[in-house]
Amino acid sequence: MHHIRIITPCATPHLRSAEGLRALERDGMRITHAYINAGPASIESEFDAAYCLPGTIRSALEAQSDGADAVIIDCMGDPALNACRERLDILVLGPAETSMHVAAMLGLRFSIVTVVDSVVAMLNNLASVYGLSHKLASVRSINVPVLSIHEDPAALHEALLDQCKRAITEDGAHSIVLGCTGFFGCAEALSSALARSNLPVPVVDPIPTTVYVADALLSSRLRCSRRTYPLPRVKPIVGFD
Amino acid sequence: MHHIRIITPCATPHLRSAEGLRALERDGMRITHAYINAGPASIESEFDAAYCLPGTIRSALEAQSDGADAVIIDCMGDPALNACRERLDILVLGPAETSMHVAAMLGLRFSIVTVVDSVVAMLNNLASVYGLSHKLASVRSINVPVLSIHEDPAALHEALLDQCKRAITEDGAHSIVLGCTGFFGCAEALSSALARSNLPVPVVDPIPTTVYVADALLSSRLRCSRRTYPLPRVKPIVGFD
Amino acid sequence: MHHIRIITPCATPHLRSAEGLRALERDGMRITHAYINAGPASIESEFDAAYCLPGTIRSALEAQSDGADAVIIDCMGDPALNACRERLDILVLGPAETSMHVAAMLGLRFSIVTVVDSVVAMLNNLASVYGLSHKLASVRSINVPVLSIHEDPAALHEALLDQCKRAITEDGAHSIVLGCTGFFGCAEALSSALARSNLPVPVVDPIPTTVYVADALLSSRLRCSRRTYPLPRVKPIVGFD
Amino acid sequence: MHHIRIITPCATPHLRSAEGLRALERDGMRITHAYINAGPASIESEFDAAYCLPGTIRSALEAQSDGADAVIIDCMGDPALNACRERLDILVLGPAETSMHVAAMLGLRFSIVTVVDSVVAMLNNLASVYGLSHKLASVRSINVPVLSIHEDPAALHEALLDQCKRAITEDGAHSIVLGCTGFFGCAEALSSALARSNLPVPVVDPIPTTVYVADALLSSRLRCSRRTYPLPRVKPIVGFD
Amino acid sequence: MHHIRIITPCATPHLRSAEGLRALERDGMRITHAYINAGPASIESEFDAAYCLPGTIRSALEAQSDGADAVIIDCMGDPALNACRERLDILVLGPAETSMHVAAMLGLRFSIVTVVDSVVAMLNNLASVYGLSHKLASVRSINVPVLSIHEDPAALHEALLDQCKRAITEDGAHSIVLGCTGFFGCAEALSSALARSNLPVPVVDPIPTTVYVADALLSSRLRCSRRTYPLPRVKPIVGFD
Amino acid sequence: MHHIRIITPCATPHLRSAEGLRALERDGMRITHAYINAGPASIESEFDAAYCLPGTIRSALEAQSDGADAVIIDCMGDPALNACRERLDILVLGPAETSMHVAAMLGLRFSIVTVVDSVVAMLNNLASVYGLSHKLASVRSINVPVLSIHEDPAALHEALLDQCKRAITEDGAHSIVLGCTGFFGCAEALSSALARSNLPVPVVDPIPTTVYVADALLSSRLRCSRRTYPLPRVKPIVGFD
Repeated sequence: MHHIRIITPCATPHLRSAEGLRALERDGMRITHAYINAGPASIESEFDAAYCLPGTIRSALEAQSDGADAVIIDCMGDPALNACRERLDILVLGPAETSMHVAAMLGLRFSIVTVVDSVVAMLNNLASVYGLSHKLASVRSINVPVLSIHEDPAALHEALLDQCKRAITEDGAHSIVLGCTGFFGCAEALSSALARSNLPVPVVDPIPTTVYVADALLSSRLRCSRRTYPLPRVKPIVGFD
Repeated sequence: MHHIRIITPCATPHLRSAEGLRALERDGMRITHAYINAGPASIESEFDAAYCLPGTIRSALEAQSDGADAVIIDCMGDPALNACRERLDILVLGPAETSMHVAAMLGLRFSIVTVVDSVVAMLNNLASVYGLSHKLASVRSINVPVLSIHEDPAALHEALLDQCKRAITEDGAHSIVLGCTGFFGCAEALSSALARSNLPVPVVDPIPTTVYVADALLSSRLRCSRRTYPLPRVKPIVGFD
Repeated sequence: MHHIRIITPCATPHLRSAEGLRALERDGMRITHAYINAGPASIESEFDAAYCLPGTIRSALEAQSDGADAVIIDCMGDPALNACRERLDILVLGPAETSMHVAAMLGLRFSIVTVVDSVVAMLNNLASVYGLSHKLASVRSINVPVLSIHEDPAALHEALLDQCKRAITEDGAHSIVLGCTGFFGCAEALSSALARSNLPVPVVDPIPTTVYVADALLSSRLRCSRRTYPLPRVKPIVGFD
Repeated sequence: MHHIRIITPCATPHLRSAEGLRALERDGMRITHAYINAGPASIESEFDAAYCLPGTIRSALEAQSDGADAVIIDCMGDPALNACRERLDILVLGPAETSMHVAAMLGLRFSIVTVVDSVVAMLNNLASVYGLSHKLASVRSINVPVLSIHEDPAALHEALLDQCKRAITEDGAHSIVLGCTGFFGCAEALSSALARSNLPVPVVDPIPTTVYVADALLSSRLRCSRRTYPLPRVKPIVGFD
Repeated sequence: MHHIRIITPCATPHLRSAEGLRALERDGMRITHAYINAGPASIESEFDAAYCLPGTIRSALEAQSDGADAVIIDCMGDPALNACRERLDILVLGPAETSMHVAAMLGLRFSIVTVVDSVVAMLNNLASVYGLSHKLASVRSINVPVLSIHEDPAALHEALLDQCKRAITEDGAHSIVLGCTGFFGCAEALSSALARSNLPVPVVDPIPTTVYVADALLSSRLRCSRRTYPLPRVKPIVGFD
Repeated sequence: MHHIRIITPCATPHLRSAEGLRALERDGMRITHAYINAGPASIESEFDAAYCLPGTIRSALEAQSDGADAVIIDCMGDPALNACRERLDILVLGPAETSMHVAAMLGLRFSIVTVVDSVVAMLNNLASVYGLSHKLASVRSINVPVLSIHEDPAALHEALLDQCKRAITEDGAHSIVLGCTGFFGCAEALSSALARSNLPVPVVDPIPTTVYVADALLSSRLRCSRRTYPLPRVKPIVGFD
């Protein structure tokens, strides 16, 4: 039984539906969820992300204590990903890294369609770090703040569909990554609508994909490299316990 | 229930142990296996690979007819991968592409340790096509032909371990991909031996990893992009049926 | 006297005019031509290409037996190129590799204008393997199947010209590679028409260019590297003789 | 008068000599210094860095309130760099980004010589984000913890010199970046020693170089792009004020 | 006191206003200026640039004899840059190299807006040499010859503004480099106009920026690497003294 | 009849044997040769190269007046290459660009073995401009000045052979480019000696290869792109006629 803990690196309790996550469970895999208790309401910038790191590491350590086999950080900025990989012994995955690699496997080039322009540079930088900038066709945004994306589901679908179409026809994307984990659940309708528009490309929904890839890596008995992520030396940290 | 068909693109019936593959099964996933009926005894060059393509496509079409949900081609040259993706409607994965992307997720840079020098250029070329050449530290070989690798398991382990160590200390590898699917089952002992040598890096065993990633993509309802791999026009092919 | 054998990797005898090829001969260079006897009617996908490999290698071996000094594979997918380089002792060139390198020498960036969308990913992948993706501005297609391109020469010219112009003005191409060897003979009219439109860029016609570059490499006494393309080990190949 | 505030993103008051910094002042430029009041004792990992971000942003905001014209973050991990650029209106520079660009201007390729292996991946990742990985010859470390580097100055010099020489002769470096701001003051002796060893390469001391480049950009009236670093939306951040 | 000599590599005495340059002086830095006595009237091609090299080297040697601490070559083709770095002991900077590195530090990607199409390839080539082609969004030109740019300042501003806007909105530029040192003084009005158009990006004015970066490198006691730019062997040069 | 003019961009009349060049002639191709009348004795730096540009352009214009169909510049720095392409209507090739593209076609990666360390950066920069830095394994030198290379042919052969072997075994080169046109005639013995050492790689001799590629491009009716190399505007050039 693989136990996967998803950590939403925000202090906004209604942001993530635990039922939605549990619907991803299957035989042999259990999903639990946690918020962090100190941090931003949502993450739409590197500034926001800066405040979620200590809380995310603390929550990841609790997941490890709770016996989790893997931790997934529920944000497309992959905040605290490398810090957690250093500090924990269990597998830690980020949805941006995982989704970009999956999208790269599915087609010639991929685009990311995200929430707001303020994360465009951050997502480009992540693609560079992950070695995938040559596979990245573009990063596009719908310009809707994270906390507003569920206000009008039909409008959200239309806005995402429009940017997906532009990514394909103008930027040459052959697959799409949804650029915010708040878009959870939107991929299938988008993929169908794109196919109906004669633009048949896969749309990667980062949270389900990262959950199932985490399960795959656990089954493969793979952890991140201690050569890249050595265990940090113990040292005092003022103001954090 | 996901049905994954592994196709060994060789006409050498004893090459792959079906029991070894079935040991990878878990709840919700069934693995079947096939050889091709016309093709090379083993694949150690682009010349060898050239003769497995028609047989592999035919076998993949049979897998689709048999109700398989995914096909995995059991060779690190990923022969016929793109042709099958074009011709089939189900998911098709290659162990080279999948393992390289997984290794890239696990550490800063990866090396591939393979059988013979004659596939070094081919593996470098695949890394270029997959967009991962910047993450590839090196390709190294143990210079043992595919059909001889099981003659002396201890010698095989030593030869692989030696090249893994060189990849890490001389080439800067932070993770390792085994560069031949014939090395199936060798990863765990290598990884442990490396850790004992104070070189703690993950070793990706391509077949298990590709099986579990295939399962993950099926759970994520993802297929390859028809934009990259359009269904081929029907046309006569002389000499093949 | 250099003897260059051009192999059309299709089983469609009327596809290539032997007279057209012989018109390329000059003092010191003789051109012969062969079809393969088993394979696809035309190549418009990696699926089609998969069926031409055994026949192309066989034909290339016959060329070597016939005393040819070089073999050119008459398809912009460069099918069987590396396999032939491994198996043969004589020079083997592909029109895609050769044309892309020549186009890269002639201007800042080049575009490829090809037949159908289904080869766009394949041509992009070849540019990656050849190390030229940074010089590739775009791959564009006219969406006319290979076997129809000679039905209406004026329409073909217009379609190619339109895509060349777009490649130059929209994608920044400074030189053009014709992306199908079936376009043989179209380059000069295109280049003239582009110059009249104040878009003076060279248009590389792959077959003549590859023939003359082959002649140049023969005069330079150069063959491909056995370090990259070692002679394959002899082994049984079931179903092929 | 340009006022440059250097923020040491650690809560270890003796780490940085204010006199050493003031020695960098010249006509028209004043340097002030601050520590953060909550954070790690030193930064030798992404884990350590995670705890300095909130404190660094707070300190940078205080610098802006104090009338500083530019902020420099005193750590080669460039922690909080992009977050501060988003949140502040004044110029913010990181010594890693600045030093790498300067080193790239001074020679064909540069190496970074740093404190400990645990920051090697981080520095490689920064080079990727800054677009300079093709100019980076290697990252090497002397394996001395940050808080111990001043214990034996002669041993430190020897260790740095040894790695600089290896970077030049084995990795092909033509210039060197000191990979820890704790090496402040070591560059000139290294550069002289290298010249005496017939290895005449510049050694970039990150803090002085970043101070003077900051002054240069202020004189040039340049700030970072709001297109890359938009001002963050105001939102609640639980646990931070 | 740093003495910076700016050499305009043209034989057109009215091209550069010495007063404009002196306005860049500040405490501790003195600027002098020279033309070359043999060379082109202006530089708008590699052909033009070819004739300025001997005169520029001679002028740079005179600058060194005059006690200058740094030489800046007043042309965005960076002509004679590497030759001067080899031959001189003092710092030599080019505005193209310096401005591109500064622009890369200020935003995700930069565009260059230059005078005429005939320097587009040259500027792209320089970005490749400087290792910055991945940060270069585009090179655009206003198609006004160098010697005409001051004929109608308002028209110049409009033409530059139009290309800056296109670079940002069509090519994804987050910062701008003015691609001709003849645009000296135009940056601030452009940057303000762009901000008013809701396109807030920095505009790098190459001459001031290079002057202040030269001053910064002098304060940092940095010179170019003798490993990259060894002192040339003395040998006869026919026709030049 | 193709008339190819080779211009040695030096003012050292004994440097190039006209008989050696004429031995490259074959049916349909005539080779003529010229020195420049003002310039350096040999080219071993960017400083030296700076003095050959005006003379090389003048000599190239004379070649065009003399009815030459192509000009080849006899130096691996490719000096004046782009300037000549702008100014002339006929084909102009450089041996560095041509040889690097040919070497890239012949194997996975190539190394350049050149005369002196002072041209290492220049050759690396050319590979970047030609888009081939990903195919370049290394640049090595034998540290013998150009004007001394013919003093001891056996020692030259040994020195070149030693660096070729190191390039192959230490740097991973699969083909070799001789990095000085003064090595004309050395390739065949090197290639044979390498084969005898079980290192069978092609060695590109730049002058013959560039001559025959020029002939091939002429037969293909290809010229360089006027989009990349527009005809320069006529303007006064002080001190040159």
